[in-house]
Amino acid sequence: MALIVQKYGGTSVGSIERIKNVACRIAKFQSSGHQIVVAVSAMSGETNRLLTLAKEIQGIPDPRELDVLVSTGEQVTIALLSMVLIEMGYKTKSYTGTQVRILTDAAHNKARILQIDESRIRADLDAGYIVVVAGFQGADEFGNITTLGRGGSDTTGVALAAALKAKECQIYTDVDGVYTTDPRVVPEARRLKTITFEEMMELASLGSKILQIRSVEFAGKYKVKLRVLSSFAEEGEGTLITFEEDKNMEHAIISGIAFNRDEAKITVLGVPDRPGIAYQILGPVADANIDVDMIIQNIGNDGMTNFSFTVNRNEFERTMDMLKSQVQPDIGARDVVGGDKIAKVSIVGVGMRSYVGIASKMFRSLAEEGINIQMISTSEIKISVIVDEKYMELAVRILHKAFDLDQAP
Amino acid sequence: MALIVQKYGGTSVGSIERIKNVACRIAKFQSSGHQIVVAVSAMSGETNRLLTLAKEIQGIPDPRELDVLVSTGEQVTIALLSMVLIEMGYKTKSYTGTQVRILTDAAHNKARILQIDESRIRADLDAGYIVVVAGFQGADEFGNITTLGRGGSDTTGVALAAALKAKECQIYTDVDGVYTTDPRVVPEARRLKTITFEEMMELASLGSKILQIRSVEFAGKYKVKLRVLSSFAEEGEGTLITFEEDKNMEHAIISGIAFNRDEAKITVLGVPDRPGIAYQILGPVADANIDVDMIIQNIGNDGMTNFSFTVNRNEFERTMDMLKSQVQPDIGARDVVGGDKIAKVSIVGVGMRSYVGIASKMFRSLAEEGINIQMISTSEIKISVIVDEKYMELAVRILHKAFDLDQAP
Repeated sequence: MALIVQKYGGTSVGSIERIKNVACRIAKFQSSGHQIVVAVSAMSGETNRLLTLAKEIQGIPDPRELDVLVSTGEQVTIALLSMVLIEMGYKTKSYTGTQVRILTDAAHNKARILQIDESRIRADLDAGYIVVVAGFQGADEFGNITTLGRGGSDTTGVALAAALKAKECQIYTDVDGVYTTDPRVVPEARRLKTITFEEMMELASLGSKILQIRSVEFAGKYKVKLRVLSSFAEEGEGTLITFEEDKNMEHAIISGIAFNRDEAKITVLGVPDRPGIAYQILGPVADANIDVDMIIQNIGNDGMTNFSFTVNRNEFERTMDMLKSQVQPDIGARDVVGGDKIAKVSIVGVGMRSYVGIASKMFRSLAEEGINIQMISTSEIKISVIVDEKYMELAVRILHKAFDLDQAP
Repeated sequence: MALIVQKYGGTSVGSIERIKNVACRIAKFQSSGHQIVVAVSAMSGETNRLLTLAKEIQGIPDPRELDVLVSTGEQVTIALLSMVLIEMGYKTKSYTGTQVRILTDAAHNKARILQIDESRIRADLDAGYIVVVAGFQGADEFGNITTLGRGGSDTTGVALAAALKAKECQIYTDVDGVYTTDPRVVPEARRLKTITFEEMMELASLGSKILQIRSVEFAGKYKVKLRVLSSFAEEGEGTLITFEEDKNMEHAIISGIAFNRDEAKITVLGVPDRPGIAYQILGPVADANIDVDMIIQNIGNDGMTNFSFTVNRNEFERTMDMLKSQVQPDIGARDVVGGDKIAKVSIVGVGMRSYVGIASKMFRSLAEEGINIQMISTSEIKISVIVDEKYMELAVRILHKAFDLDQAP
């Protein structure tokens, strides 16, 4: 017998019919002897319905009152799911974030969980109850209702699992696990049985939108085992996300390939190679609230260098304008050039730490197909390249094959 | 400067537009120097929407979970109303029943308020906030969400007024006060400036559906001044319900006339006039969960008497069947007769305590128009008669005129 936390998202509980499916899955786990705590999101569409009401009143709704409003979404779900379980004959009790209580800081709309009082839940579990908790919400030290921001139900699930020392936290989504890459691009993409947190973090931030990044950080911090599963498939063990490399396992060198075409590249040409120049370029960008992703500066030549970075594609024009009108004359750069027809392709894997030649294999594979690499950036467990966006799918397929990701390790 | 509690029902907050109207009214009161606490219901239609979801799952929804579900209705309203007030530039804070906290017993779906912690509200008022509280809901000693039953928002308003020692509790409805009788029946019906609680209780229980009876009881118990007002009329002082007779005021003998045609009459004829007979007749009726309203037994004659009572019209057939098949043979009564084409007309007024001849004036007025009185029942401040339902409107009009209710006192 184990204690398991399950999290179901808005699509999984989007109708009474789907809530009944979720209840059957929960019941099956409990019947096989497990203690179950469930965290749920609002029914899909409900949060947007409430936001629309708020926006009819205020362009930027009051943060405290917005939390009072949208937190009703999950409260409706916990009541309905509990009713279904009770109707099926299971002892069940629901809790709002306030009732648990899930203590957060006072940052409305994007609160962070500080502490969870697990005593009531523990007592209910010991008395044979299935416990259903509203995701996404908590209360600050004064009892004000807070929400964790969109996708925060994942974080609630992980935080509950940490507080209860659960065996694992199962995140039910509309995919049945984490894949080596997007199966829509590479049909041979393979579901990973396990993946490390670090790899998951890189994959999540690089564009695999399966889990909210904060929940993965949280799971890593508290060493909660996360399992990503499909709420629609009958069976399947999903993908287990572990907080350390499994030493007993022959791990693949590369776990997966991430990609996105949300970015644009900008290069400031002919920059005087002197201290403080990076700040002089990126300071105004940060002041304008523009997020920067990759940053590349190579060693200079004849006292001059080129400075490149990427921004979100939506910010491309604005960033170019600002650099040309303010920064270029200010620092005496030769020119500012850029393009938004690019894509970023990254290979991710903890295995590359201990293997040499991964980067050269990546670059050779791309070269053999005539794909030009525009920019390169690396971290300890990933290598990212910027290529022309028209080659993105091709690059992903080539790399998937080159690193044998279609074969089980 | 006074502290005023205002309560707005579901129709008054049924849309963003109407919530804006409510906000304007609240703002006007605050701007004229009052401290304002507002209790609100769910937007009209919302509670029914939620109940429909629950009924898709359970014929009789789990009481605890039903309260978790339906309490979201008022929570949505407090957030939206607060946003409107904030957008208008007013300092405003919302509270759920749990947050206040409004402590109730554990009787889900029909809880009773035990205590209100008014400290947070008081602090907010002193800091210049308008305080918006979710009506209809509270929490038991363990923090479980409870609701007070339909119409419970009135009770929340009154209970808040009692806890805060408010100057008055204003109940905004779709009528602009309490009338001497229904203006649809008697066009000359006049709005009462004041009415006593006792009169209001009689009028409410006799069919004037302006206020939930429990809230009037509650107001009486805690001596809260209630004022009934229209949320749609621009101006108007409504009707003030006072908890004691105003000694300085020339009070009318009769305050109003109530009526309804929801009842049916039943008479057991030729009942042996012996101890215990009333119980032998009404015991089985009570056991069958049938509510009885008027009960009349006159003194016997030759050891026999007739025993009459009224029941809800929907229960007429069932009650008749039971009496004929079980009670009549059991007690040896001669016959059971009845009719459901009746109406009850009542005159209500604390003034009748100190005036004789009120009853005879009522009976004479009806007799002069040829209206036969089938049954009579009296209490200290009301006289009710049962007449043929076809004479109901006529009887109301005659009595309204006979007691000069169309004239200001």
